[in-house]
Amino acid sequence: MSGNLTILKLGGSVITDKNADEGVALKEEISRLAKEISSYKGQMIIVHGAGSFGHPLAHRYSLVDNFDAEGLVLTHRSVKILNSIVVDALNESGVKSVGVHSMDCFTTTDGRISSSFLDPIRIMIEKGIVPVLHGDVVMDSTKGVSIVSGDQVLPYLALAFGAGRIGLGSAEDGVLDENGNPIPLITNDNFDYIKACLGGSACTDVTGGMLGKVRELLDMCHGRSMTSYIFNAKVAGNVLNFLNGEEIGTAISDSLE
Amino acid sequence: MSGNLTILKLGGSVITDKNADEGVALKEEISRLAKEISSYKGQMIIVHGAGSFGHPLAHRYSLVDNFDAEGLVLTHRSVKILNSIVVDALNESGVKSVGVHSMDCFTTTDGRISSSFLDPIRIMIEKGIVPVLHGDVVMDSTKGVSIVSGDQVLPYLALAFGAGRIGLGSAEDGVLDENGNPIPLITNDNFDYIKACLGGSACTDVTGGMLGKVRELLDMCHGRSMTSYIFNAKVAGNVLNFLNGEEIGTAISDSLE
Repeated sequence: MSGNLTILKLGGSVITDKNADEGVALKEEISRLAKEISSYKGQMIIVHGAGSFGHPLAHRYSLVDNFDAEGLVLTHRSVKILNSIVVDALNESGVKSVGVHSMDCFTTTDGRISSSFLDPIRIMIEKGIVPVLHGDVVMDSTKGVSIVSGDQVLPYLALAFGAGRIGLGSAEDGVLDENGNPIPLITNDNFDYIKACLGGSACTDVTGGMLGKVRELLDMCHGRSMTSYIFNAKVAGNVLNFLNGEEIGTAISDSLE
Repeated sequence: MSGNLTILKLGGSVITDKNADEGVALKEEISRLAKEISSYKGQMIIVHGAGSFGHPLAHRYSLVDNFDAEGLVLTHRSVKILNSIVVDALNESGVKSVGVHSMDCFTTTDGRISSSFLDPIRIMIEKGIVPVLHGDVVMDSTKGVSIVSGDQVLPYLALAFGAGRIGLGSAEDGVLDENGNPIPLITNDNFDYIKACLGGSACTDVTGGMLGKVRELLDMCHGRSMTSYIFNAKVAGNVLNFLNGEEIGTAISDSLE
């Protein structure tokens, strides 16, 4: 499936009210996104963020640093509810999709994915089923539990499956400079120069905000010919435009070439 | 964890109304079972059947023989609802537990588990979390999709983790002979002789009924010193008695020794 596969992330701030103290899904937005996605017929993996279904609980129980069984149970339960809302909306729009939980198919070592099980996902893609993964709590071989953000899952899967298109649908027009304008291209060559202009995500985000997203995508493309896009998924049509091959938002690649 | 781990299956006919055309959970029974389980403090994996949340849909879409994307999506969605009911009841009783979906951690070849991912389950057990797996639709490398029953998952996990105690809580007092009395011991030596006395499950069971359960457990213990028990989980106290080490119902082992 190398090259033909598209991986799309729907940010937690796009599909949830990220300022809420507990999980609030933006169901109309999710339905709109599902309809856009249904117009695209290629092979696809969807990853979504946890938004207010994950970050407040993970923060409350300090799951980034501490093992807490109750926190693990409640956070996983919560993000699975969001996943089922997204999967149901996709199926209602005709996208045959199945939730796949990061807790079931990844483990981490010190917070980074260190083992994975991709066989079911591979067969799903071959059979025209869209796997829908998400940011989640996962079992960690050193800390017991850790957080895996959708931003970590996206490049991991893109590399594992050799994805041809990689998009991160966020709540902003791309990676914004200090004047609020999207930066057209970020590379491993110019990142140090423009890093100072990037701000963190304003809300509770235990997984690193916009800077974390850029770092994950730059690490992914290091030494490889892979371009990914961070774009505004809240603008109607953008997700479908990305899926249809449009260059959109901020492009992330290894070098200026 | 070899030897200290107990694997308990709760049959679909125990936790659901198996005669229903669609998923009907027996919530009071599930709560009672969760309370019994909460009295046991050892390392444990729970597997549950799909009952009316799985068999009618799997049958309607002929998922044993045919790939059907809609059937796959609907059946998986349905069995996950049952799993969340069981997991919520366990957590309400103080058993820190997490649902792990067979679709995410197994694939099959011609209906038999051929690849698996047990790393998360291993860490859960080490950290005192009870993984709760279930009968499910899974991706199959030859047929696209197949059914994995809880009866197949139970011995697979028992072998993988070297479980010390293995119990299958059914809706009958064990494996019944033609007069309705439980057979005390079934072995690979006497199985051919007593097979004729065993009836199939009366309801829609796409996974082989009682005969299928016995075959799975006999295959598991072939050449090994492993005894498993099929007992009546509908009788209050039996699940806890099994967990506490009581010999109960029908024992299944390799030979009469």
